[in-house]
Amino acid sequence: MARIVMKFGGTSVGDLDRIRNVARRVKAAHDDGHEVAVVVSAMSGETNRLVGLVSDAAALYDTREYDVVVSTGEQVTVGVLSVILQSMGIDARSWLGWQLPFCTEDVHGNARILDIDTSEIERRFAETREVAVVPGFQGLSPRNRITTLGRGGSDTSAVALAAALRADRCDIYTDVDGVYTTDPRVTDKARKLDRVSHEEMLEMASLGAKVLQTRSVSIAMSQGVPLQVLSSFEDKPGTMVTAEDESMEKDVVSGIAFSRDEARVTLIGIPDRPGVAAAIFGALGDAAINVDMIVQSRTVIDGDAKTDMTFTCGQSDLPRALTLMEERYDDIQYTELESDEDVAKVSIVGVGMRTNSGVAKTMFGALAEKNINIKVITTSEIKTSVLVGADYMELAVRTLHDAFGLEGPSAADSQV
Amino acid sequence: MARIVMKFGGTSVGDLDRIRNVARRVKAAHDDGHEVAVVVSAMSGETNRLVGLVSDAAALYDTREYDVVVSTGEQVTVGVLSVILQSMGIDARSWLGWQLPFCTEDVHGNARILDIDTSEIERRFAETREVAVVPGFQGLSPRNRITTLGRGGSDTSAVALAAALRADRCDIYTDVDGVYTTDPRVTDKARKLDRVSHEEMLEMASLGAKVLQTRSVSIAMSQGVPLQVLSSFEDKPGTMVTAEDESMEKDVVSGIAFSRDEARVTLIGIPDRPGVAAAIFGALGDAAINVDMIVQSRTVIDGDAKTDMTFTCGQSDLPRALTLMEERYDDIQYTELESDEDVAKVSIVGVGMRTNSGVAKTMFGALAEKNINIKVITTSEIKTSVLVGADYMELAVRTLHDAFGLEGPSAADSQV
Repeated sequence: MARIVMKFGGTSVGDLDRIRNVARRVKAAHDDGHEVAVVVSAMSGETNRLVGLVSDAAALYDTREYDVVVSTGEQVTVGVLSVILQSMGIDARSWLGWQLPFCTEDVHGNARILDIDTSEIERRFAETREVAVVPGFQGLSPRNRITTLGRGGSDTSAVALAAALRADRCDIYTDVDGVYTTDPRVTDKARKLDRVSHEEMLEMASLGAKVLQTRSVSIAMSQGVPLQVLSSFEDKPGTMVTAEDESMEKDVVSGIAFSRDEARVTLIGIPDRPGVAAAIFGALGDAAINVDMIVQSRTVIDGDAKTDMTFTCGQSDLPRALTLMEERYDDIQYTELESDEDVAKVSIVGVGMRTNSGVAKTMFGALAEKNINIKVITTSEIKTSVLVGADYMELAVRTLHDAFGLEGPSAADSQV
Repeated sequence: MARIVMKFGGTSVGDLDRIRNVARRVKAAHDDGHEVAVVVSAMSGETNRLVGLVSDAAALYDTREYDVVVSTGEQVTVGVLSVILQSMGIDARSWLGWQLPFCTEDVHGNARILDIDTSEIERRFAETREVAVVPGFQGLSPRNRITTLGRGGSDTSAVALAAALRADRCDIYTDVDGVYTTDPRVTDKARKLDRVSHEEMLEMASLGAKVLQTRSVSIAMSQGVPLQVLSSFEDKPGTMVTAEDESMEKDVVSGIAFSRDEARVTLIGIPDRPGVAAAIFGALGDAAINVDMIVQSRTVIDGDAKTDMTFTCGQSDLPRALTLMEERYDDIQYTELESDEDVAKVSIVGVGMRTNSGVAKTMFGALAEKNINIKVITTSEIKTSVLVGADYMELAVRTLHDAFGLEGPSAADSQV
């Protein structure tokens, strides 16, 4: 008997037939004698529809009300899945974020989980082994209002719930069968990885490889939750996300991640004095806008030292970011405010990069050979990212996949 | 300065433009200095979509989970309306049923309101005159689960909230401009009433005239809430629903109500012994199935006294009603269980019927003249109802509207 958290994303619960498929998987685990909590996302398309409704209602909206609207997507799924599980003879009930409660910070649209009260779920596990059906993505603020965790937050909900329940395993069921060297839709040379380290997964997730949400991997790493990514449509092993250990094959580069949801903002001709960066990024941070790449460069205009500041954020945050920069004009005093949504980020990731020089040279050389213009570069210990024109994204991914020799036996061959 | 509850139904919030229209009406009331609470339904079509999702998930579903799913419709509307009000510069926030809370019985799918905690709304009225945006139809059970009040429950929510807030007025905005002698879509001779008594409105509402939900009228009557039905699309007076008084014109028949949502169940050949009716209607009552018409008749089969029992219920309750009757076979011991969904109910309503004989004769004579077969008849002090074949419903309504001389100046002429 094990205690398992099973998480199913939007595509896996996209219609009633798929929710029935999820219910069969849950039933199989329950029939095997396990204690099961299921975390589900909104049916695919629902979150986008609800977000669209709010942003069509007003360009600048109260994120507290956004959370009221958008959290309904998961609420529908937990009710429907519970009904289907019950119709299969399984004792099951839904728990909304405010019912457990799933306590978060007092932040809306992008809250962090503080604590989950699992006492009632555990009591029912002990009494009748009732399946707990829990909505991902949503929680309750200290002010008794609904919060959401930000896009992809259901993975985080699942891992945090697994940690709170001291679960033996957290299985993340998705529409792919594991973690690949890059997105197989971009190149058919992509290869499934049997294992990947938390650190690599973190970089890949944060860089837009859409398999796992970043915070979920952080929590799994810090709380020691065994995590598996696997297909909700096929019965086969997925990719284990594990601590880095000696036995792991140390590829210099393990994968190529990318993200289309990028927007660039540049503030030109800022007076070069202390406190400017704090004014810019303080304002963005207060508004819960996640800033990713940051590049600062000095120029001299008419004898005055000036600074240009470039940062990137998610496209949906761009209007708010620009409004904030305009509101803070007096503190920042740029000569020009410029933005570009027609960009994408491509990154190489690998724990082996730590001990291997020449990676940057290979990367920039390969991109230059294909005439791909690099707009921004950032690096960390185990990844290097470039911002390129959106049109060049796929080409850049394929070029780098080849340049680092990631092509392996085809995905079909590697399947057990 | 008055305290007003404004309620807008599904058609009035059917899309963003219509929600903006609602927001303009709320703003106008707020700008006039009033304290305003708005109660809204789900966007039109949403509740049907959500109910369909649950009933497609399983034929017999847990009504607790049904409530989890179906209550999301109103949750979306309150969030979106709050965002739009804020974008118009109005201080507004949404309150979900569990947040106030809106306490109900521990019954799902058809709960009754027990108590509404309006302290926080009133505190904010006093401090900043913040508009309270409240979802209709939903509440919280003593077990901390979401309940719903049954179809049309948003009217009840509005009137109960008006009573709890000791509001000066409860305005129910709908897609019609008042209460008519019958549905103008069935006959263009229908005439708008300036006033109607609570008692008449109660019968019309309970008999399927879809302007106001029955319980809302009961609460308005018992709590003395001034109630008005008016159009959300046009600026003109509606129909006041008031206590019956001397000044009211006493038409023998004030209106013709009808309902398509009817199903007939007949239990044939029940042994004629005490306790059978209790077994049948006890089981239905325990399952919160509203039974409407009941007719019992005795027959003698092979020398044994037998009873046939016919009752009607809403079409969506029919499968559950039939299942219950099958489960209770041992207690009831009918020889045959028969049902028919192809029926409709047509009723004449009027406080003047109390003091006027000959109404039944006029009604049955007019229907007979058109060859409309009557399947079931029930009567009360101020109404007489007949169950007819669904195909004959419109004809029956028009026939009775003529027979009781309800045609007045056309609706267009009577508008001020």
